[in-house]
Amino acid sequence: MTFSALDSELTGPLFASDAMRAVFSDRQRVAAMLRVEAALAEAEAAHGLVPKGLAIAIRRIRPDDLDIAELGRGTAAAAVPTIPFVKAVEARLPENLRGHLHRGATSQDIVDTALVLQMAAAFDLIAADLAATLNGLAGLTRRHRRTPQVGRTYGQHAAPITFGYTAALWLAGIADAARALPALRQRVLVASLDGPVGTLAGLGDRADAVRRSFAGELGLGVAPAPWHTLRARPAEAGAWLAGLIGALAKLATDVVHLTATEIGEVAEPHESGRGGSSAMPHKQNPVSATVILAAHGAAPGLAATLFASMAAAGERPAGAWQAEWHALTQLFGLASGALREARRLAEGLMVDKARMRANLDMTNGLLFAGAAAARLAPKLGREAAHRLVERAADQVRAGGASLQAVLADDPSIPQRLRAPLAAAFDMTPDIEAAAAVTDRVLADARSVVASIAKGVRQR
Amino acid sequence: MTFSALDSELTGPLFASDAMRAVFSDRQRVAAMLRVEAALAEAEAAHGLVPKGLAIAIRRIRPDDLDIAELGRGTAAAAVPTIPFVKAVEARLPENLRGHLHRGATSQDIVDTALVLQMAAAFDLIAADLAATLNGLAGLTRRHRRTPQVGRTYGQHAAPITFGYTAALWLAGIADAARALPALRQRVLVASLDGPVGTLAGLGDRADAVRRSFAGELGLGVAPAPWHTLRARPAEAGAWLAGLIGALAKLATDVVHLTATEIGEVAEPHESGRGGSSAMPHKQNPVSATVILAAHGAAPGLAATLFASMAAAGERPAGAWQAEWHALTQLFGLASGALREARRLAEGLMVDKARMRANLDMTNGLLFAGAAAARLAPKLGREAAHRLVERAADQVRAGGASLQAVLADDPSIPQRLRAPLAAAFDMTPDIEAAAAVTDRVLADARSVVASIAKGVRQR
Amino acid sequence: MTFSALDSELTGPLFASDAMRAVFSDRQRVAAMLRVEAALAEAEAAHGLVPKGLAIAIRRIRPDDLDIAELGRGTAAAAVPTIPFVKAVEARLPENLRGHLHRGATSQDIVDTALVLQMAAAFDLIAADLAATLNGLAGLTRRHRRTPQVGRTYGQHAAPITFGYTAALWLAGIADAARALPALRQRVLVASLDGPVGTLAGLGDRADAVRRSFAGELGLGVAPAPWHTLRARPAEAGAWLAGLIGALAKLATDVVHLTATEIGEVAEPHESGRGGSSAMPHKQNPVSATVILAAHGAAPGLAATLFASMAAAGERPAGAWQAEWHALTQLFGLASGALREARRLAEGLMVDKARMRANLDMTNGLLFAGAAAARLAPKLGREAAHRLVERAADQVRAGGASLQAVLADDPSIPQRLRAPLAAAFDMTPDIEAAAAVTDRVLADARSVVASIAKGVRQR
Amino acid sequence: MTFSALDSELTGPLFASDAMRAVFSDRQRVAAMLRVEAALAEAEAAHGLVPKGLAIAIRRIRPDDLDIAELGRGTAAAAVPTIPFVKAVEARLPENLRGHLHRGATSQDIVDTALVLQMAAAFDLIAADLAATLNGLAGLTRRHRRTPQVGRTYGQHAAPITFGYTAALWLAGIADAARALPALRQRVLVASLDGPVGTLAGLGDRADAVRRSFAGELGLGVAPAPWHTLRARPAEAGAWLAGLIGALAKLATDVVHLTATEIGEVAEPHESGRGGSSAMPHKQNPVSATVILAAHGAAPGLAATLFASMAAAGERPAGAWQAEWHALTQLFGLASGALREARRLAEGLMVDKARMRANLDMTNGLLFAGAAAARLAPKLGREAAHRLVERAADQVRAGGASLQAVLADDPSIPQRLRAPLAAAFDMTPDIEAAAAVTDRVLADARSVVASIAKGVRQR
Repeated sequence: MTFSALDSELTGPLFASDAMRAVFSDRQRVAAMLRVEAALAEAEAAHGLVPKGLAIAIRRIRPDDLDIAELGRGTAAAAVPTIPFVKAVEARLPENLRGHLHRGATSQDIVDTALVLQMAAAFDLIAADLAATLNGLAGLTRRHRRTPQVGRTYGQHAAPITFGYTAALWLAGIADAARALPALRQRVLVASLDGPVGTLAGLGDRADAVRRSFAGELGLGVAPAPWHTLRARPAEAGAWLAGLIGALAKLATDVVHLTATEIGEVAEPHESGRGGSSAMPHKQNPVSATVILAAHGAAPGLAATLFASMAAAGERPAGAWQAEWHALTQLFGLASGALREARRLAEGLMVDKARMRANLDMTNGLLFAGAAAARLAPKLGREAAHRLVERAADQVRAGGASLQAVLADDPSIPQRLRAPLAAAFDMTPDIEAAAAVTDRVLADARSVVASIAKGVRQR
Repeated sequence: MTFSALDSELTGPLFASDAMRAVFSDRQRVAAMLRVEAALAEAEAAHGLVPKGLAIAIRRIRPDDLDIAELGRGTAAAAVPTIPFVKAVEARLPENLRGHLHRGATSQDIVDTALVLQMAAAFDLIAADLAATLNGLAGLTRRHRRTPQVGRTYGQHAAPITFGYTAALWLAGIADAARALPALRQRVLVASLDGPVGTLAGLGDRADAVRRSFAGELGLGVAPAPWHTLRARPAEAGAWLAGLIGALAKLATDVVHLTATEIGEVAEPHESGRGGSSAMPHKQNPVSATVILAAHGAAPGLAATLFASMAAAGERPAGAWQAEWHALTQLFGLASGALREARRLAEGLMVDKARMRANLDMTNGLLFAGAAAARLAPKLGREAAHRLVERAADQVRAGGASLQAVLADDPSIPQRLRAPLAAAFDMTPDIEAAAAVTDRVLADARSVVASIAKGVRQR
Repeated sequence: MTFSALDSELTGPLFASDAMRAVFSDRQRVAAMLRVEAALAEAEAAHGLVPKGLAIAIRRIRPDDLDIAELGRGTAAAAVPTIPFVKAVEARLPENLRGHLHRGATSQDIVDTALVLQMAAAFDLIAADLAATLNGLAGLTRRHRRTPQVGRTYGQHAAPITFGYTAALWLAGIADAARALPALRQRVLVASLDGPVGTLAGLGDRADAVRRSFAGELGLGVAPAPWHTLRARPAEAGAWLAGLIGALAKLATDVVHLTATEIGEVAEPHESGRGGSSAMPHKQNPVSATVILAAHGAAPGLAATLFASMAAAGERPAGAWQAEWHALTQLFGLASGALREARRLAEGLMVDKARMRANLDMTNGLLFAGAAAARLAPKLGREAAHRLVERAADQVRAGGASLQAVLADDPSIPQRLRAPLAAAFDMTPDIEAAAAVTDRVLADARSVVASIAKGVRQR
Repeated sequence: MTFSALDSELTGPLFASDAMRAVFSDRQRVAAMLRVEAALAEAEAAHGLVPKGLAIAIRRIRPDDLDIAELGRGTAAAAVPTIPFVKAVEARLPENLRGHLHRGATSQDIVDTALVLQMAAAFDLIAADLAATLNGLAGLTRRHRRTPQVGRTYGQHAAPITFGYTAALWLAGIADAARALPALRQRVLVASLDGPVGTLAGLGDRADAVRRSFAGELGLGVAPAPWHTLRARPAEAGAWLAGLIGALAKLATDVVHLTATEIGEVAEPHESGRGGSSAMPHKQNPVSATVILAAHGAAPGLAATLFASMAAAGERPAGAWQAEWHALTQLFGLASGALREARRLAEGLMVDKARMRANLDMTNGLLFAGAAAARLAPKLGREAAHRLVERAADQVRAGGASLQAVLADDPSIPQRLRAPLAAAFDMTPDIEAAAAVTDRVLADARSVVASIAKGVRQR
């Protein structure tokens, strides 16, 4: 099991994507730390602070040259991986370069910047899956622009919509998350190079210049202030991921409901062996939705941890910083699996139009109760019209007649209202209205897809 | 007590500002709901859907005309306040207008839009207090640009900084939150007018036009998609508030530590009777910091609720929407109190420069251990230099000699390193480096203050 | 709105019970604080520490004699309500008694003990509603002991159960919470009388005796250690309430699903005007389930706040204690509303046996796929039997034949397996098995109801 | 890094104990699942349902015989590890036994019961570390029963206590958690054997008997109802772990404060290389406290996930169950590391009595302000006495005189009060009062240690 289901060999493949698992592997982390120390050496050499050869020597060290288990034992004593890491790297340098490694930097600079590098790669994966998901949902939306479906509030049939509209809402929600990604990247993909107490005093008047070179070297931005103890960035990244997962959870919640045996309007793309049961051979469970909802169950608590960690004391807190390590990267893992499954749904959801139509028809026209009342209200008053139709609806439920028939038989309805009332039972305006929303959402989503594609390229 | 300490007459004044309490009063909510129905009538009249007189008639109704306790009883049955509210409003309209009220709208449109109007007012209050807090902290930063202080990591003395730098970090953290406010307002201050299932079908082909007029009437934006079940907006507002409170909590955490009796570097602005004890007449407790940290204790859990609520089923969920009501507005309450106290600290914190200096001096120069090691490293190697100074530090702690003296006596240090080593004990580079950060932060904060001021004006 | 929906006159009646709202009113809190000071005076007089008349004089003060708004202003300065409260009480005492009030105590003793008194009353309300809910569910369970229903996993039809079994699971979950209540009461209903730093030094060698008398006077227990900064009790109370709400949420989740239009197996007890819509006259929304699920949306975050508050510094923390005030009492409010609605469901849920039967029959016998495979497995092997039935199930879904018919036609099934296979399509064993669970749960629940009744009486 | 810092080879050794990491390894999980299937076979054979040889054949399979990576790929498709696991096990059985494996059971039975077995082992580890921690703290308490220390509220000096009292509070908080462990074990260490929809219908009238044999075989209890969708047990286990970590966090919070350079009353046990800095050779950071506080930062959010997961639909939910996997086991991991560090502190914390004394003396007697006021109150009135001493305290802070001297010079104090006032400056009653609490706590903790020891043995 390991402690996190994301990290287990047994359950990890279900909950996180392989690519994301690779991004956050220990080896990749060590690789990122090496890259950070090399970039620091490069930047400092450019400003005459360390020998030119240092960066080259660091770059010669492969992650596999370092014994991760031994680094782990060192971390258990030191409380930060940087300390055993720097020792291990130094031991691999030519003697004349050893004194120049890690100059002016502090442990947190290395850990945070390495994590930012991993996050940059993680965001690339997310952007790609996001774009595919949005494209898939846009296709679904377009194909079902005029497929009638019943809208449901509180689980109850409410009024007609289209399945294209349903898909458009999924699309809009996920597009909202995607829209914010480029700005988030700019905000959080910044280097940390600020030294023991954040002033980078060890580099004297070259501090600013080195910091800029260092960040440039790594393709990262520079923050306006040292962020060792200003932890809005991890919290914002976590909140964005929780929000993304939340948007996917809207989709998954609907999919679970719409695949319920009695409803059956959609089905997850069928693959042999997928969604089975160890005991019941007929089962086809909604696996994709399950993965997404499991992620959504865990995400809010992890995001909460990141907000709580903002109360960071002094120039480095005892605990608040490290608590982030228990939360932020898991959110990337959860998002990767949830997004993989959302994409699968977006690209392959099976839609049963006949079932949608049959469900629409099952309430004998109660769906049009709101439209009927709206037509009576101007003459009868809102409340009176509402009550009249409410009573008729009770009759429909009790007997077998349709709402239209019951109202047609109601002598209390004035003659001149009968024609407009009949029009209330025409679904066309509902379809048109739903299609209009659909078009609005599609146009908006197109621009979002373009912007995140650009975001990826710009890095 | 009431259920929330924010709402208690006894404890509410401690935890929330009076102005914010007024914004979220029941009366203000009813007033906002009336304003929303009036704007709807206005917009529909403009497009020929309802009589012109309706908006005027609604505007004649005062919040006090409605019996809030009776509305409450109605809400307990109906599950949404809109239902009894619309009935009560209709009963106060001339007979000929009764059938036109609330046309095409759904309960959630009224509740959500009314809440958005309250949020707009709440953001105004927050922006004003934010600007004042930032200005106060900028002054503190400037005044102590070169006031030496010790930097602390894990609660331990680390290396010299300035108090201006400490204040600059508080400033930078809060400025970060403020910077995001204008975009957040644009994002969340949008109207909801989408009808029973979100398609606004009841208004036919005038739906879009009416929605735009309605939003314009209220000074709100229009969302690209109906957001009845796309709940990223409340979650983002909540996350921003939790992030703001988190930034204030960084300040408060430091204040509690720096006011500790043994440290005594700062004190909360003294007011007679403030921060006393019922048993100990000498106590002057840090009340402002306490209020902020209490808010920070509660904010992450409330933000988590909002993320969890994003899994909204169908066209209206049973529970997820209503759960927001248990969380979002409390975050505004907590933020108002926390910000009021942060402003008080920013404008009145008392600084004891002598105590800062005395604390700096208490470790016999251990503060310069990092600088000393950095000067030895290029010759001795990083690890060897580190170990040498570490041993010297142990001697300092054991005996009474200063680190400078112990190192000066160390025969293993080569002669040519003695001059550079001596320079390590000069605090000037630390002060300069801290001042440089200070200047960077001040410049950045200035532009933030300008932008939120503009944000307020633009509404 | 006020900050918490629980405290609003508009929405509070929906989300919390009237009785619980009364328990946590500001007036009740002041009354409890007066009761605490009087009990302290009584206890101290009994041990010769203060004049006998003090308790009598305090008891003469009515909550209404104190100006709560003024106390609120005092609290805003002092950070604890006790300080202005003690001043206000003292001002109402005869001069000769003034110096004896609040002797040896600290602010937190009064606030915490008063809260515990409110909690005791709150638990009484909860116990009564719990008992009624359990009794209601037991009745439902008994009445439907053999009413066939389909069991659903992942929202998909799985195998036959009974509705009595469904109700029994609701009953068992809530009984589990109830079972823990008596021990929880004993654990958390303890007095706090420990003085400024928890040692109650001000009372010298009579400290222990006075503490016992004080607790006895109030009907409370005595903790083995001062709990000013040992905050497991509030966290445990909060966790229990969150767990109770979670158990209710299981019921509510099922009710929302089972009332879905397409499923329609149960309906919330119908009351005129309840669960309506402002736009759609036919709607009958599941209001009770909505209230419960809204409570469940908010409860985990509030419980998290209480756990986080356990990191309480020194003899009184700056913020952690006060953060509890933002969480604990709300959990009582949420529980009260959720429980009121659960009781309504338990006592009045409408059950549609015909619809249950129709739903059972809609999958052409796929429900028996597991039973069929189990009968084939011993001969064919588990995996082979599973695959054979899986293929048959696909055929059932594709065509219109029943699973029994498809399997009967399958030539690959050996003759001697045909008789046992036919038996797989008999629902009787499922009904019997469900009924057996039902009986187990009913017996267990009976003892739980008895124990919480006892718990109430014992106080 | 992996997604969870607990699972990383680099950081895992810092945050979780090696023994706990072993308990929750994938291999141990597979071993537990094998053990569960074997116990099921044993129990069913005992009741004549499967061949006797099945259990023996299953027991012959070693965890290493199964390819965990391949099982992981299967889990990714099936959504539960049981499905590929059962297939893999069956493939390793003699042909004639294949059809009998897993009879009557469902996937969740195997996963949940295997997890419970891991939890049983985990609780053993926790009980052992808890007992050692409690013993360590009891020793600390006893040794410093009369070591004077200053008590602090809101970070400010309040009144004298002893360090034994400080340690006694740590002890009492952790003992509280330990006290609840035996009952928790009984409650949560129960088997799950309930079949596809919880009725265990597949075993007919032998269901109950088999379930009892199965549980007995595994040393587990039997729940009164199937708990597939009654998830109070995981939530309670999580809440207990979060509460335990919270109790440890009280200790860690105090340790961070008391080790602050200016306070220096305690130090973490020193080990070479522990708590160093990559940049500052003199640093000795509180590593143990950091690990505990990082765990405490993450625990509340994980506990919240478990409460949220209680809303489990039908007979198996889509997502809520799986979300538990993202939370519960991590809490065990966090607890293991936090407890290891708490034990280290309990057994090795270094105490600086001289520094405690010096800190006590630094406020010129302000510590006795409460005692002084208490002695004046009976004559002057509470409020007047309080104000008099408050003014004197201001003078002490302003000038250099002691509170005793200032009060001795105050002409407004009547002659007959001077003698009792002088007694207020004697620390003895504070020490005695603190020692009394200490003794109470020690007695209580002794019985707790005995009970958890018994709990371990009874399994």
